[in-house]
Order: sequence, then C-alpha cells, then structure tokens
Amino acid sequence: METNKNEAITSRDVDFAKWYTDVCRKAELMDYSSVKGFIIYRPYGYAIWEQIQNYLNKRFKGIGVQNVYMPLVIPESLFNKEKEHVEGFAPETLIATIGGKSKIDDPLIIRPTSEVLFCEHYAKIVSSHRDLPKLYNQWCSVVRWEKTTRPFLRGSEFLWQEGHTIFATEEEARQNALDILDIYDDLGSELLAIPFVKGLKTDKERFAGALETYSIEALMHDGKALQSGTTHYFGTGFAEAFGITFQGKDNVLRNPHQASWGVSTRLLGSIIMVHGDDNGLVLPPFVAPIQVVIIPIQQNKEGILDKANEIKEHLEKAGYRVSLDDSDRTPGWKYAEHEMKGVPLRLELGPRDLEKNQVVIARRVDGHKSFVKNEDIESEVARLLKETHEEMYRKAQEFLKSHIVEVKNVQELKNVVDVGGYAKMMWCGERACEDKIKELTTATARCMPHGDHEHFADECAVCGKKAEKVVYFAKAY
Amino acid sequence: METNKNEAITSRDVDFAKWYTDVCRKAELMDYSSVKGFIIYRPYGYAIWEQIQNYLNKRFKGIGVQNVYMPLVIPESLFNKEKEHVEGFAPETLIATIGGKSKIDDPLIIRPTSEVLFCEHYAKIVSSHRDLPKLYNQWCSVVRWEKTTRPFLRGSEFLWQEGHTIFATEEEARQNALDILDIYDDLGSELLAIPFVKGLKTDKERFAGALETYSIEALMHDGKALQSGTTHYFGTGFAEAFGITFQGKDNVLRNPHQASWGVSTRLLGSIIMVHGDDNGLVLPPFVAPIQVVIIPIQQNKEGILDKANEIKEHLEKAGYRVSLDDSDRTPGWKYAEHEMKGVPLRLELGPRDLEKNQVVIARRVDGHKSFVKNEDIESEVARLLKETHEEMYRKAQEFLKSHIVEVKNVQELKNVVDVGGYAKMMWCGERACEDKIKELTTATARCMPHGDHEHFADECAVCGKKAEKVVYFAKAY
Repeated sequence: METNKNEAITSRDVDFAKWYTDVCRKAELMDYSSVKGFIIYRPYGYAIWEQIQNYLNKRFKGIGVQNVYMPLVIPESLFNKEKEHVEGFAPETLIATIGGKSKIDDPLIIRPTSEVLFCEHYAKIVSSHRDLPKLYNQWCSVVRWEKTTRPFLRGSEFLWQEGHTIFATEEEARQNALDILDIYDDLGSELLAIPFVKGLKTDKERFAGALETYSIEALMHDGKALQSGTTHYFGTGFAEAFGITFQGKDNVLRNPHQASWGVSTRLLGSIIMVHGDDNGLVLPPFVAPIQVVIIPIQQNKEGILDKANEIKEHLEKAGYRVSLDDSDRTPGWKYAEHEMKGVPLRLELGPRDLEKNQVVIARRVDGHKSFVKNEDIESEVARLLKETHEEMYRKAQEFLKSHIVEVKNVQELKNVVDVGGYAKMMWCGERACEDKIKELTTATARCMPHGDHEHFADECAVCGKKAEKVVYFAKAY
Repeated sequence: METNKNEAITSRDVDFAKWYTDVCRKAELMDYSSVKGFIIYRPYGYAIWEQIQNYLNKRFKGIGVQNVYMPLVIPESLFNKEKEHVEGFAPETLIATIGGKSKIDDPLIIRPTSEVLFCEHYAKIVSSHRDLPKLYNQWCSVVRWEKTTRPFLRGSEFLWQEGHTIFATEEEARQNALDILDIYDDLGSELLAIPFVKGLKTDKERFAGALETYSIEALMHDGKALQSGTTHYFGTGFAEAFGITFQGKDNVLRNPHQASWGVSTRLLGSIIMVHGDDNGLVLPPFVAPIQVVIIPIQQNKEGILDKANEIKEHLEKAGYRVSLDDSDRTPGWKYAEHEMKGVPLRLELGPRDLEKNQVVIARRVDGHKSFVKNEDIESEVARLLKETHEEMYRKAQEFLKSHIVEVKNVQELKNVVDVGGYAKMMWCGERACEDKIKELTTATARCMPHGDHEHFADECAVCGKKAEKVVYFAKAY
C-alpha cells in the first residue's frame, strides 16, 4: 500500500486515456463497483461535486429556483407519451419488472431524465397564470444503460441536477434557458477555472424533444471537446402531450412554455482533463475540497504539531478548507500524495521554520515555493488562491484560443480536428453537410458560439452554398 | 383554486389519519405520483429536508464523517452474500431485469439499503490499521416495495442518509452507534423540537444483520410511536461475509467492526404529527424553510410594499429565512395559507402600522399577536423564534412524560396502548413475551430507553419470571 500512491502515473502524452483513468483512481476520486458503468464517488470526488452543488444552489436560488425531488421510476406507459423524447432514450433504459417478488404490470423505467415526471406534476398543480412561472430543480442520479463507459464522462449512472421550468410565454422560457447557460458559464469562470464555449446546438445535436438546445463546451488537454452542460427550450410540445394548461388574465386557456437544463458529474471530467498534469490532478482553488494541506516536517519535535494545528484552526476560522496531514508517512510521501490529489497549496512547517516564525508555501500549479512569515499566512493564502485561480483560468483560455482555427473546406477541418481543437466553419445549415463531416472526420458540430458569429466567408465549407452560420466542429468525448 | 387552501382540513380528533394526509397535501409538502408509494417531494417539503441535511452534515463532519455516493443498483449475487440481511430485505425489493433492451444476467436490485455496496468497497480499500477508521455517509433515496404506503411514513421510495463505518475495535464501532444516536437526539431537541425516547431495540426488533440496534422514537399526537432513526452495531458479520480485513500494528490480520445509522424523510412525518394542529402544519422555527412571512395590508397604498421589502431584506441580512407575500390574494387568504404551512411568525404591515413605525407579529403556535416597533423587529424576531422553539419542545416533552405509564400486567399494558402512549414494563427478556403482547394488543417493544432503566418491579409483566429490563411498548406507525 505504501508505494501505490507514489507510483508514477502514465504520462499525458504517452496515453491520455490511461492518464485520465489513472488520475481518477489514484487521486481517489472514484472506484469501480461490480456493475459496469456504475461508479463509486469516493469522499474526495464527492466533495468536489458538493462544492459545485453549493455554488449552483446559491445561483439558482438567486433567480427563484426551488429544489424538489421526483420519483426514481417512470411507468413505461407514461414515458411513452412524448414521441421524440421516448425515441431518444428508449434504447438505453434500465427497466424494473419485479416488485416484492411479483411481476409489475406496467414496467418501471429507472429515470434517465425526468421531463415526464415534472410534466405530469405540473399538469396537476398549474391551472392559472397565478401559478406561473414554476422553476423547479432536482439533484439526483439518473441511469442510462451504456455499453462503453468511462469514469465521470459516460456512465450507466451519474449524478446531476435537472431543472425543469414552465412559463406563460415563449420569451420567458427561452430567456430562462439563456440565463442558466450564463450561470453555467460563470460556474466555469468563477469556480472551475474553465473557459467554456457556449452556444446553440445544431438541430442534429438537439436534445430529444427540445426545440433549441444550448451547451457549454470545454476543450480538454488532448484537443477533444467535452459537452459540460446543456439548457433547452422546449416550446409547448411536452405541455401539449401532458395536458399542462393555464388560464391567462384574459381567461384564455393556453399551454405554458417550457425549458430544462442540467450539469452532471461530467464536470469532474472537465476539471481533470483541462487542468491535470503528469503528477496528477490540479484543482482550481475555489472548487478544491482541500485548499491548503499542512505538512509538518519532523512532526515529533516539540512544538511542530501544536503550531501546525494552530495555523490550521486559524485558516479554517478565516473560511479556508484546510487539512493537516499528521499521519506517520514520510513528508516525501505526503508531498506526492497531495500533489496527486491536486491540492492548490502545500504549507510546510519544520523545526527551522518554527524557530524563524515562518512556513514554506508551495503552489501545486507550478511548484513555486516561498517563505511566508506567520503573521502573513492568512493574507498570503488568500492571495495565492486567487492568483492560482486566475492563472489557471488564463492558461486554459490561452489554450482554448490557440485551438480555434478557421477552416474553409473539409480537408482543412480534418487537419484541425485530427490534431485537436475546434475547427470554426461557415455552414449552410443543412444536415447533410454535418453528416458528411462526421463521416469523413468523426468530428461533430459542438455549437454555434455566442459572441463569435461574424462571417469570415460566404460559402459553406462543405457544399459551397451560401452560409450564414458559424459553427465549431471538434472531436468530442 | 382560490378557495382550496382555505377549506378547513379534517380535525385531528375526528380522523387523525385523514388529518395527516390533508396536511401533507394542503401544506404542499408532497404530492402523489402515478406509481403507488413513490411520492413527489414538493419545494416546501424538500426544503425542510434540506434544513435537516444541513444540520446533520455539520454534526457528522464534526466527528470526521465523509460523504460519498454508492451505486443505485446491487447485483442479486452480491446482495445474497449476508444471509440474515438478505432474508430481511428480499421480500420488498424492486428488481431491474432489462438494460438497453437486453435481459440482464445477474438481475439488479434497486438499493433498499447499501450495506453490501459499502462492504464490497471497504474490502478493496482497507488493508492496514492505517486505513481505519472509515466513516462514510451517503444521502440518497432507497426503494422498498411496500403494499401499504403513507406519505413520509412508509413509502416504496424515500430519502435518507445512511452512514456505514468501520473500526479496528468493537468498542469504537459501538461507540460510533451511540455517538450518532446522540446526534440524532440533538437534532430533535435543537432543530425539530421533538423529545425522542432513545434506547436499545429488543432482539426481535433488531435490524437484519445487526448485533445491536438503537433507535430514537417519537410520540405522535394520537399516542402512537414513530421510529424516527436507528443506529446499529454490526460486529464483524458483514466484514467476514465480504472479506474485509486489516493488518494490525501487531501484523495480525483481523476483521474490522462495523456500525451503520440512518434517518429518513420519515422525520417529516414526526414533525407533522408531533406539532400540527387543526389549522395545519406547525413548524419548529429552526427547521422551518420560511421563518417569517410578511403580509402587507392594503399593499397598493404608497410605501407599504417598499417598507415590507425593506424589512425583508433587513431580516434576511440578519440570517433569517423570510418570505414576502405580495400576491394579489386577500390578506385573509394569505393568513390561512401560511397558517396551513406552519410558518412560525407572521408579520403584518398596514397603512396605520406604517404611520406608527410598527408592525404586528403573530405567532403560529398560539396566534398571539403583538405590536413591535420597527427598530425592535430584528431582536423581537430572534426572541420569538427562540421562545417558540422552546415552548414547542417543552409542550412535546410534557405530552411525552404524561404518556409514559408503568404497567404490571398485560391488561394494564393494553389499557395504556389502546388509549395511546408508552406502556413501561419490566421484561424477562424472552421473545415469547414480546410475541404475546403483540398478539394481544398489536403493540411492539419500541426500545429499552437510556436514562430510564431503574427497576420498578421484579417480575416480567407477561410471564411473571424474574425481569431485569425496562422496555417501552407502544402501538407504532
């Protein structure tokens, strides 16, 4: 056991996929269970998810979202009510057929997503314009029976939040999808140090049943994109299928307009693959479950552990998440362990530091060390965490910018996506051109990015017809 | 719709069961889904659960508990590893047999509880005394296929937390079960204003697979007991079945000792039935999602809504959970609505109050009203919330004390439990006597209470043999 943690992990450049799973396991983010695709979220991985939950719950609350909990199961007959939706999900459902030793007449689908449950409920509780809007969200796990699975990226079960909202008007519902997209984008810039590309999905990539799907896309270190969250405008399709109506102020009966949105534990995959290095995980400071690890040197010497505990308490009182590793491992082992786990700051304290009223603080992101006087620890920790966050964000942003390349034909596109990154392309809007790109390059349209829609050519890079849309293509997870 | 909320609910004394479901529905705590026993936790009900989560997460963290998330499903073959456990749960399992349109070879049980998953994981990650203890907890839903269901009290799906801990020694594991029992008890006294009876379960009432089960029991208004949480000491049974071993400092290989513990959304049932009255829910202030509701009178008059908003912001800044009802309903409708929802304090503000720089504050618990000067609102809200909590707790405690009656034979016991309350009895310890009581009275042994074990008789009230144990019997939910 002693050596496990310090074994080198696969280098990113040798085998990125293996590096990824090495980090997932050795940073103790997750473990496999005996059922394929159903993973165990270990304390360290789950704590990252809890930080994301805290951030989003606050932001959601700020726009009036309320948390609820809907049933785990959906009767097949109910699931089948919205056609496009059921076609999207039916192939990957897990179905319960036996309850209390008896066969269940209407088999129960373990929720792959809960649109139909929210709709059934809304139909019961909404009848007047006074009942609108409803902005409900739930934190739960969903099940999608997958053949190929990878920790956090694609699993048969994953954790997520799903917001389902209804409004009197189309404008409000679409705005909600856009507002939440902005909140997800802020989650990236404020918490995860990840610059997302956000925009509208093509019809081909839309969510089953939605009229519009928006997404945030992150660019991994290997140049592949990872869809990290989506928001949808549904129109009145579900409302019609489920009989949700409200009486307006004018006494006319109408169907409300609907939106939905979600991010999942896939975000952990984004964090790992955007920031990680050959020594393991590198956590952005504001999402890190442990922001500062204190490692005592010669901890049996008088005063060392007392001082270490004093610093810990002091920093905790100031609101930082701090861990003191006073186990009987060697300092070297502890350094490697907490490097693997991506703890942003390491605070070292040995007998000479104690004498000199100082500590050493080392940054995970670049290994830079500095001596800090005891009275400056709190302000220096604050400064270093902020600085680290900003540097990580800036670095990721530079990487992103340098990996967006304008292309004018399919060959150029292929050259870009084969190396890695986004091929920015003018597109006619035809599905056939998207299909052709997928066939020739395996790349897919990630989104039509907000804030980057100026035409740089007049023709579609595939068919040469008149093109109005700017689309980013990339290979994706 | 307008009238629904103000319709009188069934009186508690007329039909307590109907009163209960009326409150669950009309206070908008829950709704039914289309699958029996799977309920919808509506925003107001879920928010109560979130308050409980916040409290417990803090307390758990204080003793080193870490949150994790385990898979939703358990392969049947894995579930069958611990015999007593499987016998306890097999009759009420929901089983998935189809995944991605194919038959699943080893059918998947939707977790009714996750002992086996934690054990399988512990077997992988524990090998040395250095790896102990492990104190893991998860918040999730579990499924137990029930024939008779009631909101929050017994459902096919419910929300809970399940802690699963392992230790090097028996003493530590048992102590953990007892420490958590104390935390649950504190949850009652500090948050829910519920005095629990806590103690050891009889062998008959033990959890399937446990060596010792402890519980907290609450006494409902109708005199029936509600088991509101349990903690278990498992010994090494599961560890042996699942091959969890650790090497001690002496290099000897041993099985760790295990404990587990949980509370569920059943606690919402306790809150409703301990505190509720004929006007609906009465929420203890510290668990109430809304602690103060502000109701403006003649809200269209100049200055009223401005002042109401100012008070709201002021109280929110001071850390209180406040709602301002500025909907177009009448004040009378709003009063009834928030009474039904059990909001502890109602703050009324009309034109005359505005002139006089005052508000009216009414307490939900007894309807008592007082005028409060604007500058005293914050301190008065603080005082009234604390006072209300203390009064609710004291009232519940008096009710509990007056419903514990010493009995010396089965007829006396029957008289007590038929009226409602705990029959306190000396017991020989034989299962046969417990069975006989159940048969004759339908009452069950709730627990052998800590802090109330002085012998008041020498003979078992059933068989007359020598008796050493004090047991509380009651009819129970």
